[in-house]
Amino acid sequence: MKLVEWLAKAVTDDARALRWFSEEGADDRIARAFKELLAGYEIDPGSVLKTTRMLEPGEKPGFVEVKDIGFHSICAHHFLPFFGEVDLAYEPGDRILGLGKLPRLVDAFARRFQIQEDLVREVAHEMMSSGHARGVRVRSRARHLCMCSRGPSTETALTHTEFALGSLAGD
Amino acid sequence: MKLVEWLAKAVTDDARALRWFSEEGADDRIARAFKELLAGYEIDPGSVLKTTRMLEPGEKPGFVEVKDIGFHSICAHHFLPFFGEVDLAYEPGDRILGLGKLPRLVDAFARRFQIQEDLVREVAHEMMSSGHARGVRVRSRARHLCMCSRGPSTETALTHTEFALGSLAGD
Amino acid sequence: MKLVEWLAKAVTDDARALRWFSEEGADDRIARAFKELLAGYEIDPGSVLKTTRMLEPGEKPGFVEVKDIGFHSICAHHFLPFFGEVDLAYEPGDRILGLGKLPRLVDAFARRFQIQEDLVREVAHEMMSSGHARGVRVRSRARHLCMCSRGPSTETALTHTEFALGSLAGD
Amino acid sequence: MKLVEWLAKAVTDDARALRWFSEEGADDRIARAFKELLAGYEIDPGSVLKTTRMLEPGEKPGFVEVKDIGFHSICAHHFLPFFGEVDLAYEPGDRILGLGKLPRLVDAFARRFQIQEDLVREVAHEMMSSGHARGVRVRSRARHLCMCSRGPSTETALTHTEFALGSLAGD
Amino acid sequence: MKLVEWLAKAVTDDARALRWFSEEGADDRIARAFKELLAGYEIDPGSVLKTTRMLEPGEKPGFVEVKDIGFHSICAHHFLPFFGEVDLAYEPGDRILGLGKLPRLVDAFARRFQIQEDLVREVAHEMMSSGHARGVRVRSRARHLCMCSRGPSTETALTHTEFALGSLAGD
Amino acid sequence: MKLVEWLAKAVTDDARALRWFSEEGADDRIARAFKELLAGYEIDPGSVLKTTRMLEPGEKPGFVEVKDIGFHSICAHHFLPFFGEVDLAYEPGDRILGLGKLPRLVDAFARRFQIQEDLVREVAHEMMSSGHARGVRVRSRARHLCMCSRGPSTETALTHTEFALGSLAGD
Amino acid sequence: MKLVEWLAKAVTDDARALRWFSEEGADDRIARAFKELLAGYEIDPGSVLKTTRMLEPGEKPGFVEVKDIGFHSICAHHFLPFFGEVDLAYEPGDRILGLGKLPRLVDAFARRFQIQEDLVREVAHEMMSSGHARGVRVRSRARHLCMCSRGPSTETALTHTEFALGSLAGD
Amino acid sequence: MKLVEWLAKAVTDDARALRWFSEEGADDRIARAFKELLAGYEIDPGSVLKTTRMLEPGEKPGFVEVKDIGFHSICAHHFLPFFGEVDLAYEPGDRILGLGKLPRLVDAFARRFQIQEDLVREVAHEMMSSGHARGVRVRSRARHLCMCSRGPSTETALTHTEFALGSLAGD
Amino acid sequence: MKLVEWLAKAVTDDARALRWFSEEGADDRIARAFKELLAGYEIDPGSVLKTTRMLEPGEKPGFVEVKDIGFHSICAHHFLPFFGEVDLAYEPGDRILGLGKLPRLVDAFARRFQIQEDLVREVAHEMMSSGHARGVRVRSRARHLCMCSRGPSTETALTHTEFALGSLAGD
Amino acid sequence: MKLVEWLAKAVTDDARALRWFSEEGADDRIARAFKELLAGYEIDPGSVLKTTRMLEPGEKPGFVEVKDIGFHSICAHHFLPFFGEVDLAYEPGDRILGLGKLPRLVDAFARRFQIQEDLVREVAHEMMSSGHARGVRVRSRARHLCMCSRGPSTETALTHTEFALGSLAGD
Repeated sequence: MKLVEWLAKAVTDDARALRWFSEEGADDRIARAFKELLAGYEIDPGSVLKTTRMLEPGEKPGFVEVKDIGFHSICAHHFLPFFGEVDLAYEPGDRILGLGKLPRLVDAFARRFQIQEDLVREVAHEMMSSGHARGVRVRSRARHLCMCSRGPSTETALTHTEFALGSLAGD
Repeated sequence: MKLVEWLAKAVTDDARALRWFSEEGADDRIARAFKELLAGYEIDPGSVLKTTRMLEPGEKPGFVEVKDIGFHSICAHHFLPFFGEVDLAYEPGDRILGLGKLPRLVDAFARRFQIQEDLVREVAHEMMSSGHARGVRVRSRARHLCMCSRGPSTETALTHTEFALGSLAGD
Repeated sequence: MKLVEWLAKAVTDDARALRWFSEEGADDRIARAFKELLAGYEIDPGSVLKTTRMLEPGEKPGFVEVKDIGFHSICAHHFLPFFGEVDLAYEPGDRILGLGKLPRLVDAFARRFQIQEDLVREVAHEMMSSGHARGVRVRSRARHLCMCSRGPSTETALTHTEFALGSLAGD
Repeated sequence: MKLVEWLAKAVTDDARALRWFSEEGADDRIARAFKELLAGYEIDPGSVLKTTRMLEPGEKPGFVEVKDIGFHSICAHHFLPFFGEVDLAYEPGDRILGLGKLPRLVDAFARRFQIQEDLVREVAHEMMSSGHARGVRVRSRARHLCMCSRGPSTETALTHTEFALGSLAGD
Repeated sequence: MKLVEWLAKAVTDDARALRWFSEEGADDRIARAFKELLAGYEIDPGSVLKTTRMLEPGEKPGFVEVKDIGFHSICAHHFLPFFGEVDLAYEPGDRILGLGKLPRLVDAFARRFQIQEDLVREVAHEMMSSGHARGVRVRSRARHLCMCSRGPSTETALTHTEFALGSLAGD
Repeated sequence: MKLVEWLAKAVTDDARALRWFSEEGADDRIARAFKELLAGYEIDPGSVLKTTRMLEPGEKPGFVEVKDIGFHSICAHHFLPFFGEVDLAYEPGDRILGLGKLPRLVDAFARRFQIQEDLVREVAHEMMSSGHARGVRVRSRARHLCMCSRGPSTETALTHTEFALGSLAGD
Repeated sequence: MKLVEWLAKAVTDDARALRWFSEEGADDRIARAFKELLAGYEIDPGSVLKTTRMLEPGEKPGFVEVKDIGFHSICAHHFLPFFGEVDLAYEPGDRILGLGKLPRLVDAFARRFQIQEDLVREVAHEMMSSGHARGVRVRSRARHLCMCSRGPSTETALTHTEFALGSLAGD
Repeated sequence: MKLVEWLAKAVTDDARALRWFSEEGADDRIARAFKELLAGYEIDPGSVLKTTRMLEPGEKPGFVEVKDIGFHSICAHHFLPFFGEVDLAYEPGDRILGLGKLPRLVDAFARRFQIQEDLVREVAHEMMSSGHARGVRVRSRARHLCMCSRGPSTETALTHTEFALGSLAGD
Repeated sequence: MKLVEWLAKAVTDDARALRWFSEEGADDRIARAFKELLAGYEIDPGSVLKTTRMLEPGEKPGFVEVKDIGFHSICAHHFLPFFGEVDLAYEPGDRILGLGKLPRLVDAFARRFQIQEDLVREVAHEMMSSGHARGVRVRSRARHLCMCSRGPSTETALTHTEFALGSLAGD
Repeated sequence: MKLVEWLAKAVTDDARALRWFSEEGADDRIARAFKELLAGYEIDPGSVLKTTRMLEPGEKPGFVEVKDIGFHSICAHHFLPFFGEVDLAYEPGDRILGLGKLPRLVDAFARRFQIQEDLVREVAHEMMSSGHARGVRVRSRARHLCMCSRGPSTETALTHTEFALGSLAGD
């Protein structure tokens, strides 16, 4: 079974459209692209975070934020991409986490079929559980291609979601 | 036949991925979104342009450009969106064309499976033939989701294509 | 009865003005444009919002905002357009709403004869009633052509209105 | 005869729309607004320009440009505003023109039913004839509300027109 | 009596300066320009504001602000212009005011000999009295030509004044 | 004779306007401000420029430009300020001129009653004669208060003038 | 005694350096430049501020701020310039102060050998004493040439100092 | 022992890579570069800060911040550079510190193998101990090359860390 | 043999520096990071480019440019990263190349020890040979960490290199 | 002999000024700062440039430019700093020069008493002679403190100088 069959049956029978995907190798090429976009299902988020060092007893934790982490995801409703940036802030609990792992955690949840409200929620909960954070705040902003292409009111619209837990949930 | 079947066979068998598209109505919702994105096949580009007024004999034509015409298209190789803006300039031949029709002409070619090099070429040729232009220059710039999600070197890349004919082909 | 008759009687009897609208098809073309700008009267706002998923009992709601939703409306006093952007924020009550429906709700109220103070109020109330939001905040900014063309002090003026209800009304 | 009668017959019979314009004084208020927007018909463009001083015989003319002259006009096809800026450049012929009169010349042609291609042409010809310019170049850029409200591809589009005569027509 | 007489007696007797204003019509031309800049004295500020609609009993007032209202005024100390923008915010009391009248109220106070501290105070008091506002906040920023031309420290200086009353006076 | 007498006779007899300038010392204060704005008449432009060093015979001259030289002037037609920046470029002839003197030359011509077209012309000619330049190009851009306060089309307008001589006159 | 003698003894004996300052008139020219930069010592800050008008008893004072007042000073440690902007805000006590005098007060303290921490403190105290302010807040930002030229970490560094008294000291 | 030996053994045996570092002098040149990047180990941070002057008893301390202090450091985990800016704010305790020493303190800690969370912590503690500050707040933002080159999600990411002590720890 | 041995011998014997790289796993972690940065040696540039479609005989080629392709490389002289963007433009010869392959070609040459002058040259030659381009122009801009950390004059410096061949070599 | 003696004799005898430089160590501290600013005299520009590699016979040279090279210099006329950026472009002759040496060459000429016209000329000639360039173009832009502090017209002025030789002298 090939994507072009679904396309022909459900979307359009225009020959100019179908010829692109009837050629040898087209279906495999598309499947490879989607496998990359959905690679997050292969990752166990609980194993992503690493410890840089444990805090000393009584040591002040400070505040850490990685801003403008790029992400690409696929809308779970329309099978179309949405993409943008995540700002991931946390107050360390008993350990400082490896900085490079924070974008990987975002990536692990973004490379799935998602809704943007759940993306920030899932990252926040993982930071608290496997990251042992004292508090976490996750903000995202994104453009949704399922929105953009469907009317003038959405051409410039940018969607923001935010989720906070623990010591950073107050503000 | 449903999209979820192709997904399961060609991309991923992860249950968390497949459940989104197994539910009642999901396949129709996706098909509707793609029908809008591919609506250009329903349009005959040769019938889009309208004449505002004919030039007087010997009248100087002036110069007209509609810049930053937004477009959304789908990459004919990876089944993923690319989108950006077109700048469409022309020097009138024997007539001034309705301004509002220029974005519609772009839309008619963009809402198809496309490659960005052909988008500007097809718009330019149509402006010469049914628009009777003395010259035309079409520039586009776009982000390709098939590129963006696949490596750091492409995250910020913007692709430009340009095609010119007639009196505007010289520069 | 045609628009040109009103124009001739109430605004100007200059032949250069009137000839544009005396020609065959002019009145229909204008009526079509205004029908699109007033299409909001055809929409029942209470039926626009859709549920993406219900929150689990005790689940934290998070925060969602779609910013820079473009809108075009017609000033109910001067029959001239005003246009700009709406930022629509809400804290979910018992459900997460479909993101793509939020711009449509704005559109349903904007494509009417409006005053900008009521636009934000009507969107906010609808989010509380049919959207079951815990709180909502609607901000708009717009240029009014009835203002802009009438004096130097208004050429750069931008009008902001804001209306909030429920948990987001405090700040 | 009132505007609301045309509205009811040609555009919409929704009572919420019509009530705004049925009230006492509404028709007069709208007519006053349109009279201001169409005040250019009252002005003889040939009488606008004034001479600041005559050039000495053999004096080099220099180059003068007033940029970003704001204008508001009404689209002669859709009865909807378009607005933007004009850059008006000229090389003096035998006289230097009063700077403050250049925006007034633009205003005289803009406050009419117009198409943007003619606006720059008419200003340019007037600068040559009653302004005795050696050369003139008129550029405009504008947003058209008849475009903006009708599809995603036009939401960000900006239309440029240009017309040059005499010594500035070469480039 | 003419302006050039004062100029010759009080400022400079340089013939190159005086010749400009000795010519026929010069004094009238200048007087006309100053009459426009001082037209605010002809306006009764108490009659400017209009009511769009009365609030329903118990209706929440919302918040309205017109930002970047351009103004030009003349410094009451040095007879030189100062100009800039006013941001005028109010919380409605028992009525929503016509948006277009807010810039006119600013204009009525600005087109006088003024000091910038009084401009915001006078606008604020009028909004409370004839506008029946629950609260008002007026901010202005301006460049003063009496300052700018007199030393390097003032070349970039921008003066801000602010005055608030009622429910908006707290913050 | 005082300015207030002219004001009362030619512009307005409103007591609120006149009281500002009837008080002790007002006339002197205004005269001082205008004397500073017109101080250019006291300066002999031919004596402003100084030589930093003579070029060696056959030495390449290079290219020098002082950009964004601020200036304030008074419109010779309306007695109102205009102000902006001058970019002054030259190709040395037989000498390199003191950099700090270039803004002073602009100041010497700007602090007079001027028209903007003459400001650039006079500076250019002085650079050729007393500055012995091989070529010179003077560009200015300015806002004119006589324009800005008189209609919406001029609120954002910026006037550019340019004058070039010698080796820099070609482009 | 001349500056070049100190230079030769304390800094460098390179002939190429010393020749610039050995020539006739060099020492006087430098002394004149430094006298201007240190002119603040000639000014009694207590005499700078002027009263525009006294507040009425019970009149609300409003809020006034002159932002981006340019200043140039000389570092009291390294004899090298530092320069930047001051934002000077005050809440009037019993009088409104002449706006043009606020930059002059800054200038009186800046044109001395200074440290940036004292500049804001001295201006603030003077505003309270001779300006009778209810509260004052002075912020400055500056580049220090003694810093900039001495290492990569300081090339982009900008130093901020702030000092507040009275009613504006709380925040 | 040379770096090229490690490279050959641990990273790549490609001859094109190795030839660069096998040539005479290469190892020394690299070592010199790294010595500069690690020069912080040679500095005793406790000796960096200098006193400009002691505060008078009861003198208000004011607030001082040096923003955008550039720094370059080497990631202690990946041997790759990270770099960015530090904003260093303090409220003086009993003394005002030499401004130029604050960037040097940052440099002393940055030119080491570091993690960005410790950089701000170590600077803050030193300001309290040897700087006798009443309070200190250190913010940094940086790009990490160990992150940037390894995936699309990190290409635009910017890491922020913050650490505050004493009177500035509250906010 | 480990990196820490080279570090201790050639750069620093400070224990605080060496301890980071003496711990278990440190050497492997660093080697992995460098392997990624040098992955270009594994790629045969001649096999990267793919053909989207062949041009028709006589078909006009148009113009294609991918701008802002991010790259990270390592300076072949100092073993320190340099990074920035490449703009890669070409005029097709007999074929249109797959857009997504152009960033990969850049990546193949950048992920090596490089000098920035050779990076653009090597990409350009490959576009001509295996890409069959009619002309190519490659521009790069980059920051070099070997420069940035070593003096104030280089902190803001950005290096540009450019190389063009064939039909695009003329301009 | 100390700087304070010159200061007292030539500039000011105000005790508040002199006390700063009478204290122990002040003269040495200032001398050290000036020695750094004048360190260019210690450098032989002819020895700065290094060869990265020789071009192959017939190899195309490409184009190289290092932009925004920061520099600080001291005005040879007023003993006051001027500073800004240099853009240094060259077309290689028989060799590619070490990139990091280009900013050092600028530094070697800038850290002297200079005039900005000579700075670009001296760098250009050195690039041709010891750098064996085919062509060179040097542009600089700078602020001069001897200008900035002396009048409103110079507060925003930026001085540009340019000097080109060989193959880059044509444009």
